[in-house]
Amino acid sequence: MDLKEESLKLHKDNCGKLEIKSKVKIENQHDLSLAYTPGVAYACKEIEKNKDDAYIYTSKANMVAVITDGSAVLGLGNIGPYAAIPVMEGKSILMKELAGVDSIPLCLKTQNVEEIINTCKILEPTLGAINLEDISAPRCVEIERRLIREMDIPVFHDDQHGTSIIVSAAFLNVQRLTKRKLSDMTVVMSGTGAAGSQIAKMLKKIGVGKIYAYDITGVIDKKRYVEYNFLIRELLDEGIYSTPEKHDNTLKSILKGADAFVGVSAPNLVTKEMVKSMNDGAIVFAMANPTPEISYDDAIEAGAYIVGSGRSDYPNQINNVLAFPGLFKGALSVRAKKINEEMKIAASQAIANIISDDELKPDYIVPNAFDKRVVEAVSKAVSQAAIETGVARIK
Amino acid sequence: MDLKEESLKLHKDNCGKLEIKSKVKIENQHDLSLAYTPGVAYACKEIEKNKDDAYIYTSKANMVAVITDGSAVLGLGNIGPYAAIPVMEGKSILMKELAGVDSIPLCLKTQNVEEIINTCKILEPTLGAINLEDISAPRCVEIERRLIREMDIPVFHDDQHGTSIIVSAAFLNVQRLTKRKLSDMTVVMSGTGAAGSQIAKMLKKIGVGKIYAYDITGVIDKKRYVEYNFLIRELLDEGIYSTPEKHDNTLKSILKGADAFVGVSAPNLVTKEMVKSMNDGAIVFAMANPTPEISYDDAIEAGAYIVGSGRSDYPNQINNVLAFPGLFKGALSVRAKKINEEMKIAASQAIANIISDDELKPDYIVPNAFDKRVVEAVSKAVSQAAIETGVARIK
Repeated sequence: MDLKEESLKLHKDNCGKLEIKSKVKIENQHDLSLAYTPGVAYACKEIEKNKDDAYIYTSKANMVAVITDGSAVLGLGNIGPYAAIPVMEGKSILMKELAGVDSIPLCLKTQNVEEIINTCKILEPTLGAINLEDISAPRCVEIERRLIREMDIPVFHDDQHGTSIIVSAAFLNVQRLTKRKLSDMTVVMSGTGAAGSQIAKMLKKIGVGKIYAYDITGVIDKKRYVEYNFLIRELLDEGIYSTPEKHDNTLKSILKGADAFVGVSAPNLVTKEMVKSMNDGAIVFAMANPTPEISYDDAIEAGAYIVGSGRSDYPNQINNVLAFPGLFKGALSVRAKKINEEMKIAASQAIANIISDDELKPDYIVPNAFDKRVVEAVSKAVSQAAIETGVARIK
Repeated sequence: MDLKEESLKLHKDNCGKLEIKSKVKIENQHDLSLAYTPGVAYACKEIEKNKDDAYIYTSKANMVAVITDGSAVLGLGNIGPYAAIPVMEGKSILMKELAGVDSIPLCLKTQNVEEIINTCKILEPTLGAINLEDISAPRCVEIERRLIREMDIPVFHDDQHGTSIIVSAAFLNVQRLTKRKLSDMTVVMSGTGAAGSQIAKMLKKIGVGKIYAYDITGVIDKKRYVEYNFLIRELLDEGIYSTPEKHDNTLKSILKGADAFVGVSAPNLVTKEMVKSMNDGAIVFAMANPTPEISYDDAIEAGAYIVGSGRSDYPNQINNVLAFPGLFKGALSVRAKKINEEMKIAASQAIANIISDDELKPDYIVPNAFDKRVVEAVSKAVSQAAIETGVARIK
């Protein structure tokens, strides 16, 4: 059986990938009187007195909704909320299988920003957190920002932050392995969308010296400021993107002499010659899926020292699965109101530190996606950061 | 431990009553490639071609959302969406434990009719059906009607229809046991809200001759038509409520000579004298909770032949749990677009017929809430009715 057949069979035979189970038995009248009427009224009354008691007496405390409008699903594009369900169920079961977090997919029959925002807010009571997923840019940025401001539970758009957390972990380990200071590095980003801009922000936050950016319009240059959308302008305003002193609007021209390349863009944008023109010990994270900006083998042949991609069949897979399960587990365990920058950076550091000094090497810069130590480490670091930054409901 | 302590402990120790589980294993890269990327894309593409394939490849086919705004919860009133969660979780786990139906509680942070309607419609893609719950009347009637019209999955407000299905089953068995024709009977209803009017409608549909109604304003009389809300007017217009020829606006005056009393109203409204004034072989379903309109013992002492209530500690408990699990299971199993009148009546008949002619007796008119035969019988009857009335997606 090929992958298509086997995957369709798995989905069909199980009729979807998740089910909802009772944690208590209902076999007789006494069970019913405890879990349902009349006994259930006592839990209701406690929550009526203090709505945060919903974290004590209900499944809210461990419940994440995976919410999408199906507008930017995987590499499939705007396939809508029905066709998006299998992906969201996949995400939900990963939360449970990897971190023990309960998660329900909710695919919304609207692509209107205000309706999406309003629906999420209306759904708050039963949820401990929201994982926004596969919503197209730049709408996703507006939706996430508004919800973070307007809701009292964590709202996290994995497409924006997931990759940035892992890439940051990778860079922390690059620094540890090579002893090169991040502040001395010039990183070239390819891709200025939701994921790209978040990676740039986070790399800057952990100390990267200079970031040049490139997208379908060419090299990001403050002279073209008026042409850009709010995301690019914001990163120029905040000094996260620097404008290269000399460039001819090609990726080639800004890669020359750069220390690292980070791509979340399109296949085969980077040639071996371009890697050769980078500084010695070049670092290449080429994460376009499924075909990267340059293949692992080509990058290594061209002299790159550390190479990573989104692929599981090569070293250094940059896989979001390293971050979101532990991140949500950590946020939920202290009933956090937000997932803030500090919590994301704590996650990056925890992921980086899974690999000991002895183990660390160019083809082992990030942990394996199935390394069982990751979830616990991330979760602990994230809850600690939540407590320290005052967004936890419990200490 | 008393009920309060024991129930709070059960809720707290389990941190709520439900969890979401994966039906497939995710232990290695191959598992991940089938259930998530890249294999999941094949299921997405099938659904993109035909959105009804979501019933094949996702959990939609077996998924019911229990949706409330917390405006009329149990006997607790308008306690809001947070305090309502334990009740909705109770309902959800009953679906799973009794009928194997997956169910997720969603308590909405709005009591605005249009927002509730819009939210339900936006949530359609991931859901196989919606169980509306504990929404105050008459808003619940408008919300349910609109959603039935505007959505392509079953929407069922249990507070309106649940009791009516069981009461109708009871009356079908009254007819079978006593050989009295329903068409010869006069039934007095106490309570004209969402549940009461639905019971009246359904009793009429199964053939009850005359229904007089009573509520807090007195006896429903077409002379007072202009005073009534749309629900009462509608039932007068449709000839479901009859106006008694003689009455002095008291319950007493219309119970005299009636064959049956059905109460979904308030405690202790009916006296022994009133029961004595009814026709011989009086039938009394006094379902106010937790204290009925007249106690079982008083009704029997006053000469009633058949007595039922909402209480589990007396015979003939009218318990919604007899209907909704099998009803949803049956509707989901044929991917129904609606739950229509025929499906509800099929459920009533199936519930009634669980009890054989030999077993049927005055204190065994409805099956026990934990009778394991009920769910299967109801489910089969309901799917059959769905197919026959053309609301099933599969035959």
